[in-house]
This record gives sequence, C-alpha cells and structure tokens, in this order.
Amino acid sequence: MQSKSLPAGKAWGGRFAQATAPSAERFTTSFPFDQRLYREDIAASIVHCRMLAKQKIIPRQDAKQIISGLKQIEKEFEQGTFPASPSDEDIHMAVERRLYELVGSVAGKLHTARSRNDQVAVDLRLYLRREARKIDHEIRKLQKVLASVARKELKTVMPGFTHLQPAQPVLLAHHLLAYAFMLQRDRERLLGQFGRMNTLPLGSGALAGTTFPVDREWVARQLGFTSIHENSMDAVSDRDFVAEFLFFAALVGVHLSRLAEDFIFWANPLLGFVELPERFSTGSSMMPQKQNPDVFELIRAKCGRLFGNLINLLTVLKGLPMAYNRDLQEDKEPVFDSVDTLNTALPVLSEMLPKIRFCRARMAEAARHGYLLATEVADYLTSRGVPFREAHEIVGRMVRFCVEKQKRLEDLSLEEFRSFSSRFEQDVYDWLTPEAAIARRRAPGGTAESNIARQLRRLGL
Amino acid sequence: MQSKSLPAGKAWGGRFAQATAPSAERFTTSFPFDQRLYREDIAASIVHCRMLAKQKIIPRQDAKQIISGLKQIEKEFEQGTFPASPSDEDIHMAVERRLYELVGSVAGKLHTARSRNDQVAVDLRLYLRREARKIDHEIRKLQKVLASVARKELKTVMPGFTHLQPAQPVLLAHHLLAYAFMLQRDRERLLGQFGRMNTLPLGSGALAGTTFPVDREWVARQLGFTSIHENSMDAVSDRDFVAEFLFFAALVGVHLSRLAEDFIFWANPLLGFVELPERFSTGSSMMPQKQNPDVFELIRAKCGRLFGNLINLLTVLKGLPMAYNRDLQEDKEPVFDSVDTLNTALPVLSEMLPKIRFCRARMAEAARHGYLLATEVADYLTSRGVPFREAHEIVGRMVRFCVEKQKRLEDLSLEEFRSFSSRFEQDVYDWLTPEAAIARRRAPGGTAESNIARQLRRLGL
Amino acid sequence: MQSKSLPAGKAWGGRFAQATAPSAERFTTSFPFDQRLYREDIAASIVHCRMLAKQKIIPRQDAKQIISGLKQIEKEFEQGTFPASPSDEDIHMAVERRLYELVGSVAGKLHTARSRNDQVAVDLRLYLRREARKIDHEIRKLQKVLASVARKELKTVMPGFTHLQPAQPVLLAHHLLAYAFMLQRDRERLLGQFGRMNTLPLGSGALAGTTFPVDREWVARQLGFTSIHENSMDAVSDRDFVAEFLFFAALVGVHLSRLAEDFIFWANPLLGFVELPERFSTGSSMMPQKQNPDVFELIRAKCGRLFGNLINLLTVLKGLPMAYNRDLQEDKEPVFDSVDTLNTALPVLSEMLPKIRFCRARMAEAARHGYLLATEVADYLTSRGVPFREAHEIVGRMVRFCVEKQKRLEDLSLEEFRSFSSRFEQDVYDWLTPEAAIARRRAPGGTAESNIARQLRRLGL
Amino acid sequence: MQSKSLPAGKAWGGRFAQATAPSAERFTTSFPFDQRLYREDIAASIVHCRMLAKQKIIPRQDAKQIISGLKQIEKEFEQGTFPASPSDEDIHMAVERRLYELVGSVAGKLHTARSRNDQVAVDLRLYLRREARKIDHEIRKLQKVLASVARKELKTVMPGFTHLQPAQPVLLAHHLLAYAFMLQRDRERLLGQFGRMNTLPLGSGALAGTTFPVDREWVARQLGFTSIHENSMDAVSDRDFVAEFLFFAALVGVHLSRLAEDFIFWANPLLGFVELPERFSTGSSMMPQKQNPDVFELIRAKCGRLFGNLINLLTVLKGLPMAYNRDLQEDKEPVFDSVDTLNTALPVLSEMLPKIRFCRARMAEAARHGYLLATEVADYLTSRGVPFREAHEIVGRMVRFCVEKQKRLEDLSLEEFRSFSSRFEQDVYDWLTPEAAIARRRAPGGTAESNIARQLRRLGL
Repeated sequence: MQSKSLPAGKAWGGRFAQATAPSAERFTTSFPFDQRLYREDIAASIVHCRMLAKQKIIPRQDAKQIISGLKQIEKEFEQGTFPASPSDEDIHMAVERRLYELVGSVAGKLHTARSRNDQVAVDLRLYLRREARKIDHEIRKLQKVLASVARKELKTVMPGFTHLQPAQPVLLAHHLLAYAFMLQRDRERLLGQFGRMNTLPLGSGALAGTTFPVDREWVARQLGFTSIHENSMDAVSDRDFVAEFLFFAALVGVHLSRLAEDFIFWANPLLGFVELPERFSTGSSMMPQKQNPDVFELIRAKCGRLFGNLINLLTVLKGLPMAYNRDLQEDKEPVFDSVDTLNTALPVLSEMLPKIRFCRARMAEAARHGYLLATEVADYLTSRGVPFREAHEIVGRMVRFCVEKQKRLEDLSLEEFRSFSSRFEQDVYDWLTPEAAIARRRAPGGTAESNIARQLRRLGL
Repeated sequence: MQSKSLPAGKAWGGRFAQATAPSAERFTTSFPFDQRLYREDIAASIVHCRMLAKQKIIPRQDAKQIISGLKQIEKEFEQGTFPASPSDEDIHMAVERRLYELVGSVAGKLHTARSRNDQVAVDLRLYLRREARKIDHEIRKLQKVLASVARKELKTVMPGFTHLQPAQPVLLAHHLLAYAFMLQRDRERLLGQFGRMNTLPLGSGALAGTTFPVDREWVARQLGFTSIHENSMDAVSDRDFVAEFLFFAALVGVHLSRLAEDFIFWANPLLGFVELPERFSTGSSMMPQKQNPDVFELIRAKCGRLFGNLINLLTVLKGLPMAYNRDLQEDKEPVFDSVDTLNTALPVLSEMLPKIRFCRARMAEAARHGYLLATEVADYLTSRGVPFREAHEIVGRMVRFCVEKQKRLEDLSLEEFRSFSSRFEQDVYDWLTPEAAIARRRAPGGTAESNIARQLRRLGL
Repeated sequence: MQSKSLPAGKAWGGRFAQATAPSAERFTTSFPFDQRLYREDIAASIVHCRMLAKQKIIPRQDAKQIISGLKQIEKEFEQGTFPASPSDEDIHMAVERRLYELVGSVAGKLHTARSRNDQVAVDLRLYLRREARKIDHEIRKLQKVLASVARKELKTVMPGFTHLQPAQPVLLAHHLLAYAFMLQRDRERLLGQFGRMNTLPLGSGALAGTTFPVDREWVARQLGFTSIHENSMDAVSDRDFVAEFLFFAALVGVHLSRLAEDFIFWANPLLGFVELPERFSTGSSMMPQKQNPDVFELIRAKCGRLFGNLINLLTVLKGLPMAYNRDLQEDKEPVFDSVDTLNTALPVLSEMLPKIRFCRARMAEAARHGYLLATEVADYLTSRGVPFREAHEIVGRMVRFCVEKQKRLEDLSLEEFRSFSSRFEQDVYDWLTPEAAIARRRAPGGTAESNIARQLRRLGL
Repeated sequence: MQSKSLPAGKAWGGRFAQATAPSAERFTTSFPFDQRLYREDIAASIVHCRMLAKQKIIPRQDAKQIISGLKQIEKEFEQGTFPASPSDEDIHMAVERRLYELVGSVAGKLHTARSRNDQVAVDLRLYLRREARKIDHEIRKLQKVLASVARKELKTVMPGFTHLQPAQPVLLAHHLLAYAFMLQRDRERLLGQFGRMNTLPLGSGALAGTTFPVDREWVARQLGFTSIHENSMDAVSDRDFVAEFLFFAALVGVHLSRLAEDFIFWANPLLGFVELPERFSTGSSMMPQKQNPDVFELIRAKCGRLFGNLINLLTVLKGLPMAYNRDLQEDKEPVFDSVDTLNTALPVLSEMLPKIRFCRARMAEAARHGYLLATEVADYLTSRGVPFREAHEIVGRMVRFCVEKQKRLEDLSLEEFRSFSSRFEQDVYDWLTPEAAIARRRAPGGTAESNIARQLRRLGL
C-alpha cells in the first residue's frame, strides 16, 4: 500500500525534529503569489518527467502515472478546485504534495535530478516568455493605433514645443509617430532580451549540477528554449532576465508617461487641443463641471511602481553570495506587478486614443502665435548668405520689436523687414506660414508630410 | 418616495452623457485595494456628519439617519457581507452608493462641504496613524527581545568584526544592543513624523476650501488630530507624511537587513556562532542535510520592496502640478505593502531571536585567534609613553612576526616582547585576554560589561 | 632627533611587507572628495587633543605642539597651499601625514584613543550640521520670498486646477503659500533630524570603545553635540543621519519640482499667466524667438539626482555586516552632491521669484472660463436644502447644457436656472463671480483673503 | 573687418534686452562637466561642416576656415590651454565662442541647419559609443583573468554554498566561471544596445527637422553611425540609449558586488579560503593586525552609485513633455559617473584577482565537513530504485543521526547505513568523497572537471 503524503510532511523534513512555527510558515510561504506559475510548473515537470523516463532514470510506467497526476492537478487549478493547504510553501511543493495525494509514493520520483532552485528558475522563465510576447503584441497594437490616428491627422498643424514653449509648427502626425518610435525601441529591447531569457537552467540541481544522466538539450527543445545554462551555479542564481524585463517595463513606463503628460496638457481647456472621450474620463465628486483625464494621470503615475519594481529587484540582488539564496524568492512580486501594469495600461491606451477628438482649429490657431516662424526668417536669411548666427541675432531683434508692437512676424511690412536686413525680399512672405515651414522640412526625419509616409514604412505600419 | 441610488449612477455623472468604458473603469478603480480603508472612511464620515448637524448645515434628523446607515455599512464590511459593485470607483463611492441603498436620498447630504480629495487624505492619515502605532509597538517588542537576549549573554565574548575581519573582542550583548539603538532611532524618527501625519485636511474641499461654515477644529479634536491644514491646496496634495513613512520603513529595513546579514554569517557552520531553531529554518528539496536561515534571508531581501515602495511614491510626486491629481491614487499600494512588510517581519524576528542558541564556546574560541589583542599591545605601549602611531607600527611588526611563527601574541615570551620594545614589562600579559580587553573599555559607549547596564537604562529597557 | 614622517609610510603599514599597488591606491583613496572636510577634521582633532591632555593621556606640552601644527595645516588648506601627496588615503591621513612633517613624531600621539572609524563619523556630522543650518536658512529665505510675493498679489484671482483642469477660482497668494507650507514641513523635518545628527561618535574607537580614560561628554560639549553615542559598534556604522538628510533633500526636491512644473506651465504663452525675467531665462541657439524657463526645468530635473543620491546610500547600507565596513566611504559623494544641489537651487529661486511678472488680467480672464463656478451653484442649491449629491447632479446637467449652448453659467437667465431647479432665486447671481466664490471660502484653510493673513501668521512670515 | 565675438554675447541673445543674471548663469551652465565631450563635439562639427559645404549650403572656403579653427580648438583642449569663459553655457557654446575669436564671423555659419538639441545628442552618443567599447574590452579582460585563474585551480575542491550554508562540493574553477557567464551576459546586453545607441540624431534641428538640403546619411556614414533617427521630435528627446547604458552598468555592478561579497567572506580568517595580496589590501589606523579587503568592499558599495545614477535619469525622464526640455541636461553627470566607476573598478579587479592566494587545503578541508555529501547518498538510493523524496527523507534522518553522534556520513559503518535502508551496499563508499561527487556531475552545466573546458570553449576563453 502506498503512502499518500509527503514522507515527512515537508519535502525536506527528514533532517528536522521539529515542525515549522506557524509564524515562520506564514512569513516564508510564497504560494499566495507564486501559484500564478502553476501552468509553467506543471509543463516543466511533465517534460522533466518524460526526460527521466527517456533516459531510463525512472521507469516509463512511473512517468505515465506522474504525468497523468500532473494533468489532473492542472485541471484542478484551471477549474479553481485545487485544494490548497496552509503548509504549502510554494507552488512546487503544493503541486508535489497534491501529486502524492493523487498517485501515491511514485510521486516521490518526480524530483529526481532536480531541485527547487532550478525548477523555480525554469518556471519564471517560461512565465515571463509568455507574458513578454503578450506585451510585445500590445505595444504593436498601440503603435498601429498611433499610425492610424496619424494617418487621420495627416494635415493637422500644431505648435511643436521645446521647454514647453512654442517652438516651430509641426504636424500632429509627426508628433504622434515620435511615440511610435519610442515604442519601437522598446520592442527591439525586449527582443534583444529574449535570448537571455530563453535559456534552460533545469538540470543544474541545487547548485552543482546533477549526478543523473539527464538530457538537458532535449528538455530545452521540448520547452522551446534556445540554449542551456552552461554553469550550474550561475543557472540557479541568475536573475538578470528579470532585471532586464523590469528595466524594459520601466522604460515603456517612461514613454507612456511622456505621452500621458502631453495629452493632459493638451486637454487643459486653456489650450483646448483635444477633447477626451467621456467614456474614458471621470468627473469630480464635488465640482459638477469637471471632466478629468484620469486614465492619462494614472498612466503617468505608473512610472512610480515600474521604477520601484526595478529598484526592488536590483536591491535584492546586490551583494548576494553564491549561489541560490532565499532572497531570490522576492523576485516574483515585482515582476508580476510590472507585467500586470503593462498588460492593463497598454490596452486602455489603445482603446482610448482613437476616440480622442483633436481640435484642429485650436491647434492651427495656436501654431500661428508665439513667433513659431522665427526660425524660418533666420533660415531665409541664411539661405541668402547671412551667417546663421548673425541671422539668428537679427531675427531675435525682430521678435523683440514685434513683441513690443504686438505684431506677428508675418504682419511686418517689407519695409519693416528691410529695416532689419537688406537681404529681405518679397519672397520672404512665402516662408511665413506654418504649412510652408512644415513642407520645407523634408530632409529625412523632418516634419514634412512626405516624411510621415517614410516613417510609417520604417515602422512597418 | 426616495430614490435608492446615486442620482446619475456615478457621483459625478450629471455632466456626462456617456457611461464609463468598462476598460477605463477597471483601469481606474481603486476599490480592490483601498477598501482596506473602510473603517477610517466611515469613522471620518460619521464625525463629518455630526459636525454638519452641529453647524446646522444639515438637519440633525438627517445626520442621525446617515450615521445609522454608515454604522450598518461598517458592520457589513466587518462581517464580509458588504455587497461590492463593479462600478465602485473607490472606497468612498462604494460606501456612499451603499448608503443610498440603505437610507435613500438623504445620503446625498453627507458629501456636503467635502470632496473626495480631502476625504481620501483624511482616511489615509487615520490609517497610517493606527498602523504606525502598531509598528512602533512591534519595534519596541523587538528591542525588549534584544535586551533580554543581551542580559542572558552578558558575559559571552566574541570577535567583533570590521571589514568582516576580526578586529577586537566584544561582548555579544554589546553587539546585540547596537541593533537596539538603531531601532531606537527608528522609533524617534517615527515619533517625529507623527505631528506632520496627524494634521486634518478635511474641510479643504476639492482644493479651495468650502463655502459652508464648517468647524474644522472640532472635527480635528473628534478624530484625534493635533492640528488642521492651513492651506487647502496644500492639504489635498500633501503626501509628505506617506513619503516620510516609506522612508522610515526603508531605514528599518536597512537595520533589519544588517541584523539578518550578521546572523546568516554566524549560522554558517564554518563559524558556528549560532544554531538556528529548527522551527524557524527550512530545508532543501534536494540536499537532505540543509538547515537554511530562510527567515533571515527574506528579511534581508525585504529591503528591496521597502526601497522600491519609497522610490515608487517619490517618482509619483515628482513634478506634479497643483493641486490634486489622480496620480496620487498610486500612493496607497506602496504604503500598504510597507506596512504589511514591517508588520510581519518584526514579529517573526521577535519570536525567533530568543530561540536561537549562541554557541558561546565557538565564539570565545574565535575571539582568541586572529590577533584581536593587537590593539591592546599598542595601547599598552601608548600608556607607557610611546606615541600611538609608533606603538601601532611596532605591534604591526610583531603581528607579522607572529604570523610567520604561527604564534599568538600572548604566546610570545617577555624576551620576544622586549626585542620589539624595551617598554614591555611582565604586566603586558595582564592585558592579553579578551576578557581584559573588554573590561578595559569602560569609557561610555565601550564594550565593557558595566556599559551594558548603562545602555539598557538609556533605552529604558 | 625626531622622525619627520609616518613610521611606516602608511598609518597602518607596520603589519605589511609590501607597498600598496598604485591602482589600488587610486581606487581606494577618498582624498579627492573628502578633503572638503578639512575644517571639521581639524576642529575635531583639536578638541580631541585637548581632551587627551586634560585627561593626562598625553602631556600638555605635546598637545600644544600638535594643536599649533593643526592650526598651521588649516591655514594651508584655506590658502590653498596644502601640499597633497598621491599616497594620502583620505583627509585624516593627509592631515596626520602633514602634522608629522610640521611637528615631528609627537604627531603620533594625536591618534591615541581614536580610530578613523569614529573620526570620519564625527567629521561628517559636523559638516552636515553646518550645511543643514545653511540650507534651513535658504529655505526660510525662500518662504519669505513667497510671502512677499503673496502679499503683493493679495487680490490676484486665478483658476485653481485639479487634474490640470480648471476647478475653482483661487487667490494666487493662496496658491503660492501652499509651497510655503510644504517648505515649512521640510524645515520641521530637518529640525527633527537634528538631534540624531548631533550625537558624538568619537570615543568609540574602531568598534569596541577605547581603553583610555577619555572624557566623551566634555568633547561633546566642546563640539556642540547634544549627546554621545552609547554603543560603540553602532556609533561607527551609523549612517542614519546621512540617509535622513538625503531623504529630506529628496523631498525638498519634490516640492521644488512641483513649484517648477507650475511655473513652466504658467509661462506657456497659451496660458500666459507669467512672464519670466529675461535675466533668468535663456534662449535657443536655433529659434530666435525662444525665451525658455531653463532655471525651472533644471530645478524640476534635480529631483533625479536627489532621488539617486538617496537610493545610492540606502543601497550601500543594505545588508552591511557589523561594524564599520569600507563601503561606508561611499556615503560622502551623495551627501556633498545633495548639499550642493540645494545650496544652489534654493537661492536662485529666491532671487528669481520676485522678478516674475504675474499677468493678472490673463489669470482673472482664465478664472472666468471653464465653469469654475459650478461648485458655487451646487453649494447654493445645497444651502437651500437640496442634498449635495442631487445638487451636484443638477449642476452637472446645467454645465452640459451650457457647453452645448456655448454659454457661461452666469449667463443663464433666471428662467433657465429655474428650468433646472425651482430653488433658484435671483440671489444666485451674487454667488457667480470668482471674487465671491473666493470670499465665501473663509473657513480656515480656504482661499478667502482673510485666510492669507492667518497663514502668514502661522508660518511666522 | 570681421567681428570677433558672438553677435550678442550669447548664441541666442538677439531677442533679449537684458543679460543673464550671474546666479542663473552659474546654475544653468553645464560647461564644468560637459567639456569632457570636446572631442566628440568638434568631430561632429567638422563632419557637419563638410556636409554643409558638400551640399553647397555654405561655401567650401568658409568650411575650410571653420574646420581649421575647430582643429585649433581641439589642440587647445588637448594641451589644456583652452581659454574658458565664465559665460560659456556649455561645451557647444564654448567651442563656438572660441571659433569666433579664431576665425571671425564666418564661425556663425557652422550652426546652419543645426540646433544644440541635436548637437548634444550626437555628442553624447559618440562619447558613449567610445566608452562602451572600452568597457566591453575591460570586461573581456576580467573574463580572461577569471579563465586563467580557473585553469590554475582546475582541481581545487571547495564547498559550494546555498543560503550561505555548505551545500555540495564544487570546483573553485566552476565557481569562478559562474562570474564569467554573468559578465558574458553583460557583454551581450551592451552589444544589443549598440544599434540603438549608434543612430544619428543630427539633422533634426531643434525639434522639427531642418529646411536646408542636408545629407544626413552621409553624415551618419562619416561618423560611423549605422542609421539615422527618422523622427526629429523623437531624435532630440530620446535618451533611451543613456538609460540602457546606466542599466547595463547597474547590472555589471550587481555582478561585481556578488563576486566581491564572496571574496570578502572567503577572506575572513575563520574561513581562510583566500589570502589577499598585501598590495591590494589596507590596514587599520588603530588595529595593527588588520588586513582589510577594502577593494572588494568598495566594489560592493559601488552598486549604490550605479543604481543611483539609473534612478536619477529615469526620474528626469518621467513625464517630460515633448520635445527637448532643459531637464535633459542632467543626463550627463550620471553617465560620466557610471562610465568612470566601471572604468576603474574593472581594471583593479583584473589586476588583483591573479594575485590572490587560494588556500586549497582549507577549502578542501571545509568541503569534507557539513554533510555536503548527503545529496550523494540520496542519489545513490534513488539510483537503486528508491523514489527521490523517500531517499531524501531517509538521508535526512541519517544526517540527524550523524549530528547527534558527531560523525560524518562517510564514517558510518555499512551496518549503520543498512539500518536506514537495506538498499545500501559496500559501493556507497565510492560515492562519498567530494572528488567523486564532483566527477559525477558531468551532465552539461555540472561542476565536473570536463565541464570546465566546455564552459571555457563556450565563452571563447
């Protein structure tokens, strides 16, 4: 007759004469959060078990039993019927404990040639690989949304700002595609991390490797890994892939916060560049007139937790001696939180952006004030042989003159123009519309309409 | 007949023609985490309501009804029967929505002279005040445990380390009380924050104050606040008290991590200074002999999340325009997490420390090696008129000599001593025991046994 | 005849057979940055030396010689003639090395009963105490500037924002004093840290105290410390006071960044709330019209380094074993940088703020748009017995109506008013000016003019 | 006659009637730190100038004059004779100001089709590209040092630790190569960032592109960039490459801190695993016997500044509106500091490591205690058909038995073995040496000697 429980209560109980204190149990358990890894834990266990059988480390018949038990457990998790126990230290032990209950002592063979140290590393890699793909997909979706809005606003002129001061007229489409390029770098960054994430630690045992004739390359292929860890001590303590992901997420957060800041600014009625969709705004409990850009504010604020999660893990890793240390258990919550943050912030943006109304008239109007065409005048002079610095200085004086007279540059008479420099001719007025200023910037990267198409091509959008 | 629901579904719905998108609702809701504040929200609402009646802003009868409804809601929360709704934006709206269901449209009077902006600020202050007191209590408990262990180990001699190199002998009690002093500073720090935490923002409205003749001082007294915010714009956007608490928690984390590092080091069997209680250790799933200091490792690692929470909030606050912004909603999860971290780490330490066995013989033995008495010899020479630097240099050479001869300093013959300096006399040997070295350090702050009592007095322990 | 150099080249050279590698010397030296502490190092040495003589630990005559040498060295530093040597490990050894050169081997007596571990701790405390006072003074100056501007703008009406959306009219003076209150908390925070900063570690030796009959209380009094460290191991490794200061600086940074953000926003010509003084703006190398708020932008950005310095030190402290470790040498650069940052940012703000022109007409104009008076209408109805929520809902519908009709609330006819609620009477129009809205908020903390005086009194300004 | 100074004192002075306040000048200048970019600034200006001539935007003759002036300026910087002026705002303006002095008003043509916004971005990219290559080279050198030490210690047996508890015997070579693999990932990470760093922003103007017919692809080729920025607004505000580098540096810091922690631990004489070279240690000013691992301690602590620099920049970037903002000036100091930190820490490690003496006997001795062979016994039983969990539990009980009897596992008699399980045979003793345990771990990644060669091959070492 088979025992239906772990030999000594805990997987490691043999050496211990006393049971764990409940407070210690509560303090050290990771099951409340790492149960999220059940799918990966079971998938990796099944492949590990198949390999043990293939390599004749355990009998094929035992493997069959174990695998059928594991599949049963997966079903229980999926149906929410998994019977958790307060003494489950983590997802691995919870699964193994349940496996004993389901298939008896043959369950004890699953952990051959394996330690929790390499097991949790493989689980987390599988999890993050899956989520990273999902997030990449969401970023791509947001890029497509930006492209589609850019196409709709292909001729919308607006003031471009530097230092939050009106600088030069730009196309709204150009502005929006700037975000698409930031996101493109995020995607490249994630792709570049993939190889380092997609490496198999399993087979490293607790820290020194295993004495059993395992076939790690086979396991790697089955689980879709592209390489194996070549050093077992490194394998069980390597959390670089987590840190890289958290940094990636932090930088996505930066990009989204910049986008959010712009829209919050544009939504201020004193600018009135955009009207937010009511369905994505909220009101005030006190002020009946309010329509607040809460979604954008929260997205801007999410930088906080994304940075915090990164610093969290880096702090945990600092000065850790070789090889595995329990400190590493703290890697999971920050990664889950950053994954969740991106997985909710990106779709809500993608859904909201197309519903925002751009107030073209207000934007165009704004582009006509604030001397945004001053650079044009300087460029005009430069193209007529005046050294740029001198031209810049002349136009600076013209602006001062206009400020005093409360005029726009394009309102000056030719005579007035020529009082500043004799190089001015009638054709200077051809330069003095936002549209002309934009059209003239057709060197690659510039805001001319022709470059929008080029940008979309480059982004494959 | 009274309406039994919020007039327009949302507290702010009047101005809106369209309902909130479900994705936006999910993204912006804080109810899943801020329901933790239900007790504070209701307590503050009751006092607010009483004040409204006292000031004749609402009829006393209405206030009665509202308060009885609020008490009912509190009971529901406590019994886990509060009927949450997916459209509850936050704890405030959930309570108010439920209040409508219970008492009808009179519920609509509760929010007179109040905004969620000052309401959430008061809730969080009440919550943190309560938790800060609890945490202070837990720190005090840990100090008492340290004191009690110090008393038990009053004569235990051990090597003190600097640079993790053996430096001079110290009393274990002295070492342990160093932590008690760190914790004492933590308590003073928390106490110092109290005044700033314990200030009433309620009555500030959304940002500009209120038009109703509220009695803020009365509300402050009822809720136990020691002062009121004098500037409404500051009041609704002030999260300094949260940042201060998170910093306090981070520094407690630093102190605990240092304690943990020491115990992990001492528990290494090559040192063998301590034996951890089995009830507070865990084993390995692979290596049957392991007894791991997991609790200490996790405590060391908690620095990560405590630092992360601090950076999270600071990042959120950076560059926020006046006054309230939705970004501030992100203040809650970090504070809850730091509160929970301290509330679990401190008690588990207090419970575990008294059960640790200090291996006195191993410690004493270790204090006899590694030339820990070299400073004594230098001090001996200095007390006989040799300038300290010269004495230091002479003893340096003696140590080199001893290393080569594989001797301890106290094993040198008087002749050997005198070959380094003629100032050495027979009485040098009186200096050369760890016990004598310790006893001689009786200037305040030194490791002499007499100072232990002094320290305990200073700490009130 | 006296030797004129340290006995073995280095203060600790006796035990060593080989000289330090130049690369190690370069890597470990702190002299390039910690020479900034020369004044404190010498001041503490002089007091220490006097105490040694007073306690008859060294002859009075020797003390005299040493002190005169130290004063000479201070003069050299002040005149920039101190002859540094590449092998100076730190400020302490540089001073001692030079002392040997000046007074010969009696210099070797100065280090009696002292270690660099307690010496550097006392130096840094003295330095930070001095700088903290200076910074407190600068904050106070900035508060006074805010108060003086507030007094000048006592009747300036502007829109108050929440979520960067116009919310309710406020007084500019009220808005500005919100910053004064933030800064007041910063000052209280700093004051609260003072006691913990102002504690004497000297006399703790390397870690275990000293064998000499030192008089620590006397030293404390002479150096202006209010207490002594009671535990020597804590004393040499305690950097809490540095972390506290860095946190204080980070939070000042947050407050200044918020102020900066507001002014950058106001300076945008589409709002046109302020005109920055040319003397505190810069232009563009390309766009002749630009007048950029660079000072504010840089102040906003300084949060970065202030947060970074805090995380730097916290990271260094995490998991450090007892007692002193060389890691602690890394405490100085962040603290110097945060000190310098505040010492330059605060005065430039104080100098610039009074020169900013507030465009009162633009602000007042802006306060008349965007339905900032909606709350007034709701409060009006509430004061006539309509439950606040219902009133809020009614006004929400009125705003929607006005948006469609492109009207302001105050432009509605009484009939139109009454079509929304029969409670409206002629007197509703009395409520409908920004000035009335502001005047009505006279409950403490509100934006009414009478409260400005109250706030200034509370701040002692 | 040519003017010999910038037209209006500042490059942007035309629009301004008043000079900059000295305090604002001091506060905003970046010249004290960004002059480090002089080489890159001049190199990029020369190529830009050639392109302007090639495209006939400026006359070839003017270009010649400008370039010869720039070369002169470079020489001045290299010889330390560049005459700086207090009003130099930054390296760009310092160079241009000097150019005026050297070649007269033709200097004013250099800034045609360029803004400081794209200029500083190109400078920083060129700088970081150069430094990144140098750092990569230093990492490679450190890997080679690790490989060479590993080869020398190919048979050195030591205890491997998990949780800082003895776990299983490993080869020192295996342990050391774990670091080589971490560093390999660092190098891959850096390589992956290269493409994103090596993109040309020049030609983007201030934010909108340029009106001149520039040839950006040609400039990119000349400066060795592999692509050009396709969106001008993105180009001038993109600091992703800086953040990526700072993250890379932080992770290198983590890896070095882990190595440092191990060596500090090993150098503790109670372990006595290593003896540090005197030339890379320092002593104590008080305790004559000390030989401290200062270099390792400082390397461990450097994590602090590396993390701090990363958080610094991320904080600066959070929520920045489009496009360029002066906040971005704060990107330089953190990047310079992280570059310097790696450029000094890596070489000192490479120089020191080969000089460390590994105390093979102590390590081997340590590997024989602490029941490191317990896993072997469990594996033995498993290989004889006992389910692993059961085997683990049996050996757990054996260890407890041995602890009580103060025996090692290999000292048990066969009878004693068999009292725990009848599966034990005489051949169990063959498993019970550290050497056998190591040799048996020959599955890829394990600590067997054969795998060391495989690892070195994989690392190309």
